[in-house]
Amino acid sequence: MPTGGLAYRGRQLAHLARLKHEALTDAHIGTLLSECESHSNGDDSDFAVNVREIRRTYDRATKLPADLVVEISQTTTQAKHEWAQARKANDFSRFEPWLDKVVQLNIRRADCFGYPDDGEPWDALADEYDAGCTAALIESVFTPLRERLVVLLGELMGSGKAPSNAFNELELSVDQQRSFVRFIADAIGFDFNRGRLDESTHPFCSGTHCHDVRMTTRFHEDMLPDALGSTMHECGHGIYSQGLLDGDYIDTPAGMSVSLSIHESQSRTWENQVGRSVAFWKWCYPKLSVFFGEAVNGLSCDQVYGGVNIVKPSLIRVEADEVTYNLHIMVRFELERALMKGDIKAVDVPGAWNEKYRDYLGIDVPDDARGCLQDIHWSMGAMGYFPTYTLGNLYAAQFFEQAVANIPDLEQQFTRGEFASLKKWLNENIHEQGMRYLSEPLCEKITGKPLSADALMRHLESKFRPIYGL
Amino acid sequence: MPTGGLAYRGRQLAHLARLKHEALTDAHIGTLLSECESHSNGDDSDFAVNVREIRRTYDRATKLPADLVVEISQTTTQAKHEWAQARKANDFSRFEPWLDKVVQLNIRRADCFGYPDDGEPWDALADEYDAGCTAALIESVFTPLRERLVVLLGELMGSGKAPSNAFNELELSVDQQRSFVRFIADAIGFDFNRGRLDESTHPFCSGTHCHDVRMTTRFHEDMLPDALGSTMHECGHGIYSQGLLDGDYIDTPAGMSVSLSIHESQSRTWENQVGRSVAFWKWCYPKLSVFFGEAVNGLSCDQVYGGVNIVKPSLIRVEADEVTYNLHIMVRFELERALMKGDIKAVDVPGAWNEKYRDYLGIDVPDDARGCLQDIHWSMGAMGYFPTYTLGNLYAAQFFEQAVANIPDLEQQFTRGEFASLKKWLNENIHEQGMRYLSEPLCEKITGKPLSADALMRHLESKFRPIYGL
Repeated sequence: MPTGGLAYRGRQLAHLARLKHEALTDAHIGTLLSECESHSNGDDSDFAVNVREIRRTYDRATKLPADLVVEISQTTTQAKHEWAQARKANDFSRFEPWLDKVVQLNIRRADCFGYPDDGEPWDALADEYDAGCTAALIESVFTPLRERLVVLLGELMGSGKAPSNAFNELELSVDQQRSFVRFIADAIGFDFNRGRLDESTHPFCSGTHCHDVRMTTRFHEDMLPDALGSTMHECGHGIYSQGLLDGDYIDTPAGMSVSLSIHESQSRTWENQVGRSVAFWKWCYPKLSVFFGEAVNGLSCDQVYGGVNIVKPSLIRVEADEVTYNLHIMVRFELERALMKGDIKAVDVPGAWNEKYRDYLGIDVPDDARGCLQDIHWSMGAMGYFPTYTLGNLYAAQFFEQAVANIPDLEQQFTRGEFASLKKWLNENIHEQGMRYLSEPLCEKITGKPLSADALMRHLESKFRPIYGL
Repeated sequence: MPTGGLAYRGRQLAHLARLKHEALTDAHIGTLLSECESHSNGDDSDFAVNVREIRRTYDRATKLPADLVVEISQTTTQAKHEWAQARKANDFSRFEPWLDKVVQLNIRRADCFGYPDDGEPWDALADEYDAGCTAALIESVFTPLRERLVVLLGELMGSGKAPSNAFNELELSVDQQRSFVRFIADAIGFDFNRGRLDESTHPFCSGTHCHDVRMTTRFHEDMLPDALGSTMHECGHGIYSQGLLDGDYIDTPAGMSVSLSIHESQSRTWENQVGRSVAFWKWCYPKLSVFFGEAVNGLSCDQVYGGVNIVKPSLIRVEADEVTYNLHIMVRFELERALMKGDIKAVDVPGAWNEKYRDYLGIDVPDDARGCLQDIHWSMGAMGYFPTYTLGNLYAAQFFEQAVANIPDLEQQFTRGEFASLKKWLNENIHEQGMRYLSEPLCEKITGKPLSADALMRHLESKFRPIYGL
């Protein structure tokens, strides 16, 4: 958007927010819902699921006064702009009053939604991204996860060994990279007849229904691993979206994705469980010379597999590896929870941020641009969102263990470039379930166990210890 | 859009068409309009203009039954797809039934809108793109224009002389072209603080208000003149959109553009009256070596000016020059008018098309893909639209003569790279008038004369005869 468009964009978005809110809270929907509820026995039939989830959306919306909706829209449009300026200028003080406004508005929003007596304001926000998710649940999983991650990270960094960085330093033609990642996307099961892959600065996956799914990735001559990882990540989202039920299910909860956490589990499955596995690279390594010719001569399969699995504590979340990524998330979760509780103020964020980066990742944050100003989320009003990334990693690992239990030669199949069994397993167990089960119940249903840190830690320990010679 | 998304896209667009129609025809608007009309004296005040134009929109919408709106939306979504396939396969028979459906739906639409006793169905459609425009008015201007154009074209083609094509054959870096056209867009007055210039296969100008105007252009190494022409053309649209009144005027008729014809007059002014003039190139020619260095060595100013002004009858409208362009439009106008009157059927279109190309342009159409299947418009349901392109050329020429009369050294200013006077003249006389006057009355108001072919023919004859040594 051109700078000059900001003020009017704010007006437009606020107007749309009001229209959306009016449509969502139309009293006629309430009447229809009550009528439907009298015919629903609350089981897990399509009908009951649709009634339950439309009721959830309706109740959330009706709890918010329209003026607050408009105020939030106006404030976050401006806050996003101020955040961008503050990050550019590396000046947290410019963003601080806006972060404060966002927190205060979110506290008012949480008060409107309400939360159980044993809950807290943060829960009311997280509920929007992952219904049923609470800070207490997250804490119970994040605490052992953090302790074990810090131990594992210490082991790896103390091993005195590190994989070769050669793969990450290759300079490769962007045209060839484009062909290569499209080949991979097709091979793992993204349907190009019902979707597209384009390019943008920040990769994303969007689209309106299972027949039209839009993904983006990005290319730089010296960043093939980034292009590949981003493509496989977005393919995970895209394959989920394409796997939702068709026909009358479209635009109904029974044909929608469960939550951001489960969506993220799908992207992480293909990005990490598949795309960073030995089995995948056994198949994929020879393809490199097909697509890149002499440019990849002299690069061994070990160098490639090691190169996509380098662990190194770093400042920026979106550049983090599989092991340290979740520590970045925990910092954000703890801070936004404390902000929402009133335990800290916006002004305290940089100090608290830097302290946690020292404690969890062992690194010093040199400035706020590379510290607490790096992410856009809070400026958009999104609190309760960050943990869905780590929940995605946790679910991905727990689901994948179950898929391997159900399909014992699954990883053997990867070595032959066969990914259809995994896709089918995900389609049936997750995608086609729509919103039938919420995230945690879905996990218990599929794996027979509640969500825990165990599967993810088993995955990380069994993979990274050998890579680091342990 | 991926192929698989077509059916559902049709559903979505039809649903949106119904919602839009419901909103536009809300009886409450009718009540408010009647109330306002009792306070309006029908003059050209902002209030009266807004009431008049909202009434026009409301009346047009209420005359259409919602089911017809939905049927048109569904049919044209499919027809657009069938047209694309037919063009690709060079098979008119595939598109013919769809063209027939579009014509029948448009006849029903025209019957709903109604038209005066001395009018015809086509008028009712054209009214949507250029209120007050009729086939009779167009015919009265197009007939002398066609006769004089055919004579001029004969003279030029018979001159035995043609400008050098050297400028059109240059191979230039796309990065340099990008910098160059942005420099030109800024120089002629497009405000990058309130707009953007991006790239797309087909250039266009869009945006939501005067603070956020989005244009695209396109680049090929051997097509700088196309990139420059497209950019200046879209800048004309963009400068108009940026020149509309601000604040409370936004989203009201008093702050909106008059018609597609007047919009097109603005793009043609900058593309042709400015961008293909001797005066412009006196200033711009030396800039070529600034931006392209040695690659333009040896190219004279005459070669550049001649290169952007080559006249040659051709098959494709969007590639046509200033002289032949309008003949392409006349073919389309005459055929769609005959279709709407029932004088010809869809099946007759290829034959009639080819005959007119022979008569007006003196060329044989080798196949329908390069003939009557070349344009998307009819497949989208748009009939009454094509003439706005030529009306734009006519208005552009007539306005420009007036601007030169008001600012005698205007073209001298161009030779110094000064375009602010022209922009200011257009701002005051056209852009800031919003919808105060409809197209033709605006023309009379500004130039003191009704629209005629004279100004455009004076412009073309006085420019092209010397170029062709006559």
